[in-house]
Amino acid sequence: PQAGYWLCVLWFLKVTKKSVYYLPPTAVNTTLRLRDLRASMIPLNISAYIIPATDAHLSEYIAPRDARLAWMSGFTGSAGTAVITQNKAVLWTDSRYWIQAERQMDCNWELLRDASIRSITNWLILEIPEGDQVGFDPFLFSVDIFDIYNTNLAPAGRILKSIPDNLVDKIWTNRPPLPPDNPTHLPDSVIGVTWPMKVDQIRAQISDNPYKPTAVLLSALDETACKHKTAQHKAISCRRVSLNCSIKLLSGQIFSLFSGLFNLRGNDIPFNPFFYSYTLLSMDEIWLFVHTERITEELKVYLNTTCYHSYCVQLLEYSSVRSYLQSYLQRPNVRVWVGTEYTNQALYELITPEDKLLTSTYSPVLTTKAVKDATEQHILKEAHVRDAVAVMQLLMWLEKKVPEGTENELTAAHFVDQCRRYRTNSRGPSFETISASGPNAALAHYSPSNETVRKLSVDEMYLVDSGGQYLDGTTDITRTVHWGKPTDFQKEAYTRVLMGNIEISRTIFPAGTRGVNMEMLGRRALWEVGLTYGHGTGHGVGNYFGVHEWPVGFQSNNIPFQEGMFTSIEPGYYKENDFGIRIEDIAVTVPATTKYGNNYLTFETVSLVPYDRKLINTSLLSPEQLHWLNKYYETIQSVVGHELERQGLKEEYDWMMKHTAPFLTAGASAVISSVTLLVTVLPSVLLHNLL
Amino acid sequence: PQAGYWLCVLWFLKVTKKSVYYLPPTAVNTTLRLRDLRASMIPLNISAYIIPATDAHLSEYIAPRDARLAWMSGFTGSAGTAVITQNKAVLWTDSRYWIQAERQMDCNWELLRDASIRSITNWLILEIPEGDQVGFDPFLFSVDIFDIYNTNLAPAGRILKSIPDNLVDKIWTNRPPLPPDNPTHLPDSVIGVTWPMKVDQIRAQISDNPYKPTAVLLSALDETACKHKTAQHKAISCRRVSLNCSIKLLSGQIFSLFSGLFNLRGNDIPFNPFFYSYTLLSMDEIWLFVHTERITEELKVYLNTTCYHSYCVQLLEYSSVRSYLQSYLQRPNVRVWVGTEYTNQALYELITPEDKLLTSTYSPVLTTKAVKDATEQHILKEAHVRDAVAVMQLLMWLEKKVPEGTENELTAAHFVDQCRRYRTNSRGPSFETISASGPNAALAHYSPSNETVRKLSVDEMYLVDSGGQYLDGTTDITRTVHWGKPTDFQKEAYTRVLMGNIEISRTIFPAGTRGVNMEMLGRRALWEVGLTYGHGTGHGVGNYFGVHEWPVGFQSNNIPFQEGMFTSIEPGYYKENDFGIRIEDIAVTVPATTKYGNNYLTFETVSLVPYDRKLINTSLLSPEQLHWLNKYYETIQSVVGHELERQGLKEEYDWMMKHTAPFLTAGASAVISSVTLLVTVLPSVLLHNLL
Repeated sequence: PQAGYWLCVLWFLKVTKKSVYYLPPTAVNTTLRLRDLRASMIPLNISAYIIPATDAHLSEYIAPRDARLAWMSGFTGSAGTAVITQNKAVLWTDSRYWIQAERQMDCNWELLRDASIRSITNWLILEIPEGDQVGFDPFLFSVDIFDIYNTNLAPAGRILKSIPDNLVDKIWTNRPPLPPDNPTHLPDSVIGVTWPMKVDQIRAQISDNPYKPTAVLLSALDETACKHKTAQHKAISCRRVSLNCSIKLLSGQIFSLFSGLFNLRGNDIPFNPFFYSYTLLSMDEIWLFVHTERITEELKVYLNTTCYHSYCVQLLEYSSVRSYLQSYLQRPNVRVWVGTEYTNQALYELITPEDKLLTSTYSPVLTTKAVKDATEQHILKEAHVRDAVAVMQLLMWLEKKVPEGTENELTAAHFVDQCRRYRTNSRGPSFETISASGPNAALAHYSPSNETVRKLSVDEMYLVDSGGQYLDGTTDITRTVHWGKPTDFQKEAYTRVLMGNIEISRTIFPAGTRGVNMEMLGRRALWEVGLTYGHGTGHGVGNYFGVHEWPVGFQSNNIPFQEGMFTSIEPGYYKENDFGIRIEDIAVTVPATTKYGNNYLTFETVSLVPYDRKLINTSLLSPEQLHWLNKYYETIQSVVGHELERQGLKEEYDWMMKHTAPFLTAGASAVISSVTLLVTVLPSVLLHNLL
Repeated sequence: PQAGYWLCVLWFLKVTKKSVYYLPPTAVNTTLRLRDLRASMIPLNISAYIIPATDAHLSEYIAPRDARLAWMSGFTGSAGTAVITQNKAVLWTDSRYWIQAERQMDCNWELLRDASIRSITNWLILEIPEGDQVGFDPFLFSVDIFDIYNTNLAPAGRILKSIPDNLVDKIWTNRPPLPPDNPTHLPDSVIGVTWPMKVDQIRAQISDNPYKPTAVLLSALDETACKHKTAQHKAISCRRVSLNCSIKLLSGQIFSLFSGLFNLRGNDIPFNPFFYSYTLLSMDEIWLFVHTERITEELKVYLNTTCYHSYCVQLLEYSSVRSYLQSYLQRPNVRVWVGTEYTNQALYELITPEDKLLTSTYSPVLTTKAVKDATEQHILKEAHVRDAVAVMQLLMWLEKKVPEGTENELTAAHFVDQCRRYRTNSRGPSFETISASGPNAALAHYSPSNETVRKLSVDEMYLVDSGGQYLDGTTDITRTVHWGKPTDFQKEAYTRVLMGNIEISRTIFPAGTRGVNMEMLGRRALWEVGLTYGHGTGHGVGNYFGVHEWPVGFQSNNIPFQEGMFTSIEPGYYKENDFGIRIEDIAVTVPATTKYGNNYLTFETVSLVPYDRKLINTSLLSPEQLHWLNKYYETIQSVVGHELERQGLKEEYDWMMKHTAPFLTAGASAVISSVTLLVTVLPSVLLHNLL
């Protein structure tokens, strides 16, 4: 080993000793794996090999069998990229994961604290000579990400070499197998549009397109991008800041086509009802590439797999997608339509001759899909009412149990998962519950484990970010609470996070405004006192898909808001080694009535759980914010109140009514506070009367 | 002519009759010109020819000799693109120019009301057969704009054909010659850094670049993009919405290198101190491509044109840039660094082999340049104090004269230009003054002419947007006033525009926040009542350059704000056929003191002219907004007050003091207004005392 190795060992000992109290050392010995991988690189004549954290469908929340980066490096965070040369092994990841990466990686590895592709390619340019080759698995690169690498490396004479057979897979003994579950179709009760009707919609888009494509290639598994719950909590502009997150963003939305197409769901990836597949759809044929042994007889009937007309699905083996696509491209006058943000380079590189290819950033189908119709809106709101009951049950239970000192992060997470399980149409959590107390909550991506679990106590703030999958909708909500006496700073920070949530929620904007252009409203109250947060402010969500249903949201590459889109609104604040605050609600865009204009929108919050009153300093709120808050509580009282009464949940009803009482005195004090700003201009007699 | 011709004629008569009162028909007969152009297309075997509105340096504010689009079509707006085929002639422009285009174009022309490149290429795909060629002048296309055209056309089999000899120039009899003025260098008093020092800075950037370029090509004339005063008033996201504006944005900033490089100014384009040139700068040579006959002996000495070491400028003929660049590229191991946003395709297409080329969106020099050093900040603020005197003189004069009925838009514009001329370091206006009364002000791009001029009266609102060039700085300010009795709606709209201006001005944000992410603060108060405006919210400005000094500003492709950047803040509201409001100030980003954080910024307004009190409904302002306004007026009183006293301008001083009196009663009424929102929560006894 080099000198750097021993420095690392020394530093490692020091750091782990220092901070062992909340993340114990779990470094993986990677020496043999690296040796094997390096050996496999030599015959291929590559000087470096890039390993991203995604899968062939550019998902970020991946199945264990796709966790190649974790297996090679030990690092299990959801975002990161590794590069291995004959004498170095380097991991790039963003600030959320620096501490975790330091603990999980052994001293074969170097951590670079930057997640931009530019940082990786600059490193490659310094590290390997001009003319050398850099290997990569084209299945794990979107077209757009490949382009960025290539644009950076080609002018410097470093050549990207596409290696469709993954090198890690070849040396990975004990690679987990496919999950055993078969895909299933949705029950009729939650299907608005049948799959042949959806096929018609896509075919209409194909024939309307002036470039006359002959087929659409659907290669993303799902429409979530950065869809791992925690992946979304990253630097503001997802695409620009975080490499791995960018990779994920691509994946996205064509699954809306796909899953929407067949109304199917699977279980290949935890918390996400997806299964591995590609679809190639032309005007008169449909090819579905799946692990065919998993398609049941019932599903074959459902998909019409035994005929050959234009509404029959032809099942083909998942692994044959490349060769089949190639043969399709041999046909005369074909042109394949792909989305550059969610197609992998392995398929794209087959289609590169211009006359065979039509690209667009997002499929037009996507934006259509992002707007929920009346039925979808209705059932998704219903799911949120049921979900609110589960979250209130958790909060009520914690209020009682925490002072007794019997609960911890894991039991709380378990409790809320159980509460959801009892609700109608439940299909389990929509992501791994983030249940984080005190300093653990300052890690925006934390989920508790046996090693890290903290007891819940009245001395710490507690953050719980959880959601449910229901057949009719996906939910996602975060509440932060304090069961003891919060500090003034905690109250101020919490209140300013809440102000951010309210400011976005109540804003009125023209239809077609992009979320990224309103996102700062979620930060402004924090900025005023020099605070901010390092993650995004919201993501789309929908009817039983991934919990992050892009391209709706507040990121720079999200599409403009139209009526009927659902998004999370989730500002936060994190004080390292101390506490974390996030307040997340789901809201739907609805028409706003304005004095002079038409076609304006605002948000209607559909997550219906009260905030922690103890943490709200109402004197900081503007009259408009206080008004919004009281209105919101009125809605909870009437909508969730009705549900709780229906279910006969008396104790929950009382808890809810207590926590949603209107802020009367607070309103008065808010006025006094605005007045004090104007002390100098008010006749003192008025002031005296007022104060 | 086709049937469409006669429909057009009928429609034309109808429309012009209807609206002749403010824009008389001035259609140009283009029949012969079109015939000649079409004849020249035949031997080149092109089915269509594209004519943009820009020049070879991708400027939008162009010299008369570059107004090819206007000469061909009659349309003189600053943004638009024409396409001519053998039987059609079509102009695309955005909504600001639809009425103008209808009036200026004869019935040979068709107007398409969309300014996206996609609209143009979709039209071409429908109009000309696959395999046909589309001609264009590569000098008039930036690399990026060419890419968009090509990406849209190539997959559809329509081939772009580069024709470096412009077809319009060949048939343009009486094309205006070059202006007679020679370039001059800046006086020492306003030069902080000499040109050889600046050359060193650029060379340091060249050698620091990991891609090892050997030279930088500087091809933009100036750093303004969309720099025509009116071009900036377009749809929010400049690059995405407006084709022509995009073209301009490219031009931009490398002139910072260039002009900064030599500290030279010219007069080739009205209101902009630029001259036609390209620069190629390597580690040991500097080539300046200009109209060499215009370089005086004195300038030759200044530029060291008679030697051949690394700080000598080699003068080459302007028209030789293509052939010279080609010969440079023949040298072994050269690599030229170009900015894709501001290099034309004519030069870029010479460098395309990857090993010869290094591209970046913005040069790193650019961002450095956008941050003004202490001297630049100081002199630019000084220029604004002098400029404020001129604008106050105009407003004071109009207040007296308008009721007498003697003044009109032109006399007012003339008056303010004269007021500026008397100020120290004056170099004339920085753009054509927008002096617009009543319905004329609803056209955001209006400048008065003999045909359109309106008398100023107490019955109409009046908008004046003007600026000055001074050796030490460039100014740009808009005030809207009413000399009679404004309607409630006018007051509300004005107040909400002002609220937008204040909300941006007073906001606190982390250094590095992008303007586009804060821009909605300028619109939010309008959005609340269903109003908005169709142009950008601000642009950079600096020390004696173009009045739009990109890449600073609030557009989507502007760079993040850092301390020491100057930008305009200019929300507006326009009611068609009735009135127009815009409130524009220049502000500089300064450090903000926050309770908990470091590295936060806010804006300090450096335009120091009061707003029209009569138009402000203070009950709409928040306490924070009112506080900001009173503070701003205090600054005007002390800073401009001092200047007015120094100059002995007693009448102006009194006018200023009257118009900047603090809003005392208004403050009280604002409180009452917030209180009324909370009437229900206040004990009525307090209310009675207060009201």
